[in-house]
Amino acid sequence: MLPTIAWRGRSVIMIDQRKLPGQETYVRCSTYIQVAQAIEKMVIRGAPAIGIAAAYGVALGAMALTAGTGRSLDRDFEKIYQRLERTRPTARNLFWALERMKAVYERTRQQGLRAIRTALLEEAKAIEREDSVTNRAIGRHGQTLLRDGWTILTHCNAGGLATAEYGTALGVIRAAVAEGKRVRVFADETRPFLQGARLTVWELDKDGVPVVLITDSMAGWFLRRGDVDAVVVGADRIARNGDTANKIGTYSLAVLAKENSVPFYVAAPMSTVDPTLADGGGIPIEERSPDEVREVGGHLVTLPYAEVRNPAFDVTPAAYITAIITERGVCRPPFEKGLK
Amino acid sequence: MLPTIAWRGRSVIMIDQRKLPGQETYVRCSTYIQVAQAIEKMVIRGAPAIGIAAAYGVALGAMALTAGTGRSLDRDFEKIYQRLERTRPTARNLFWALERMKAVYERTRQQGLRAIRTALLEEAKAIEREDSVTNRAIGRHGQTLLRDGWTILTHCNAGGLATAEYGTALGVIRAAVAEGKRVRVFADETRPFLQGARLTVWELDKDGVPVVLITDSMAGWFLRRGDVDAVVVGADRIARNGDTANKIGTYSLAVLAKENSVPFYVAAPMSTVDPTLADGGGIPIEERSPDEVREVGGHLVTLPYAEVRNPAFDVTPAAYITAIITERGVCRPPFEKGLK
Repeated sequence: MLPTIAWRGRSVIMIDQRKLPGQETYVRCSTYIQVAQAIEKMVIRGAPAIGIAAAYGVALGAMALTAGTGRSLDRDFEKIYQRLERTRPTARNLFWALERMKAVYERTRQQGLRAIRTALLEEAKAIEREDSVTNRAIGRHGQTLLRDGWTILTHCNAGGLATAEYGTALGVIRAAVAEGKRVRVFADETRPFLQGARLTVWELDKDGVPVVLITDSMAGWFLRRGDVDAVVVGADRIARNGDTANKIGTYSLAVLAKENSVPFYVAAPMSTVDPTLADGGGIPIEERSPDEVREVGGHLVTLPYAEVRNPAFDVTPAAYITAIITERGVCRPPFEKGLK
Repeated sequence: MLPTIAWRGRSVIMIDQRKLPGQETYVRCSTYIQVAQAIEKMVIRGAPAIGIAAAYGVALGAMALTAGTGRSLDRDFEKIYQRLERTRPTARNLFWALERMKAVYERTRQQGLRAIRTALLEEAKAIEREDSVTNRAIGRHGQTLLRDGWTILTHCNAGGLATAEYGTALGVIRAAVAEGKRVRVFADETRPFLQGARLTVWELDKDGVPVVLITDSMAGWFLRRGDVDAVVVGADRIARNGDTANKIGTYSLAVLAKENSVPFYVAAPMSTVDPTLADGGGIPIEERSPDEVREVGGHLVTLPYAEVRNPAFDVTPAAYITAIITERGVCRPPFEKGLK
């Protein structure tokens, strides 16, 4: 499958998602700082994928620990943890993965550096492995919602490149195709970072799934014309009531889908659900560099000093969501109970 | 004001809108074929502006007529007319301006080439001049709808560059500013051609009006957050019932504005109203080259062979429109009566 991220001989290898589809190049990270920077610069992106990357980051950080035990070891571990924690604020999976890694550290901190390192690396590998299994379960449940001959609209990239492999939203589509359903995908280009144009088109083309690229502004019109049978997107964080943070533009799609009576599905692992949030009001929304909007591929598209807003995510209220598909099954409103 | 289009010594000069804001260069057209190509390639764009360009195109075509009278003159005129008529299908103003030019030709066709040429050039100049007057009237009426301190969202460029000068949607904003109202503009970048990022930001920056550039996918989120007080857009064609064709993405904005109880205004001259259409169902929607979506400024953003849809316009049903602002005043629903 897609080589999103892999552990190879004391380092993490990631495909450089900033350069796709023009170049298939790989970035090797051999320190936790390099992993943190790769997440920040979006060499790797997608909520589950950055969770996996952060877990490997902790494992790499542990390789360089020198203090054997006690409070100075704790302090050094905390420094690694905090550096990775502050890379990106919105995706729940990042914190979920880091919390799992911390729990392993806490369980092994008295056992010496070698045991700590081994346990942390094993946990990171487990997180990666489980993500593959999870995505296939999401696909299995989600594909039951799609019918033969349908056109599916998706936004951003919730595919193999956003996960260990297979994907969440694109996992649902892959599973439908594997069931013999002929589906076609409309992919929003997803400005400013163009994950749809660059990554989703590339992934689906590799798999031979028919995909049509549109600009974000066209989605509503195709929904109105009846050209779209369902919308399926991923998620970065889901509150207990089902309010869902996902790539900026998702909220608009959900409103437009509802207005045109088209089902709107969110596909995400349970690790995206934030049990501490009652609703989406508390989800931190990352605001990224204005240059992402001012430029496309290094090419300036406006005045160099243009004032810009660049929220990377929005929150779709649960009321616009037809169902949330997780590895446990298809959860319908009210979501509070199903997401528990 | 802005040098969108001007008649200078037997030729038409247009600012090359494909190159803004990076380069301020001008294109000189001395044949009607060059004008037709300039409209097709979007050297000039915006419904009122392409009407003016087409009118000058007819005047230029007449300069090269050789047959003095009769049926061969009619045939030569018809060839010019048809070439300009098939440049772009959606904007009503193009056909409106051409019809005015044809009426002048029909009135003068018996008077000899010199009289025909003079009358056609005068008519083209009148169309340009009237457009300035019209825009200022639209601004005067429209600004009454905007309050001091408001943030106005606009899409594409319905500014001086889309008209003779001053603009329709941006004319409303300019008139509000002239009245001393402090308004701020959110400009959608407007993929694929980026009229918002390239033209609206440039125009408003020149006038000192505060403008914030966002991607098209962000507009819904800012509407939901309560950051936008009104949406004002232009129009390419308005049916008798108020259904409005405008730049792709306008329909989505109208739905999102309504969902969030934000007023949605269309600003356009009466020449945009198509009296032959009862509703928006009959408006032809131009589909442009896939390369406009595949590339940004010549930079490929997806697979070179990606399948693409590229409708340049959509139709917003009248039910989503709070008011239509023309040079005659502010028209509220039901629009059928007011637009007569």
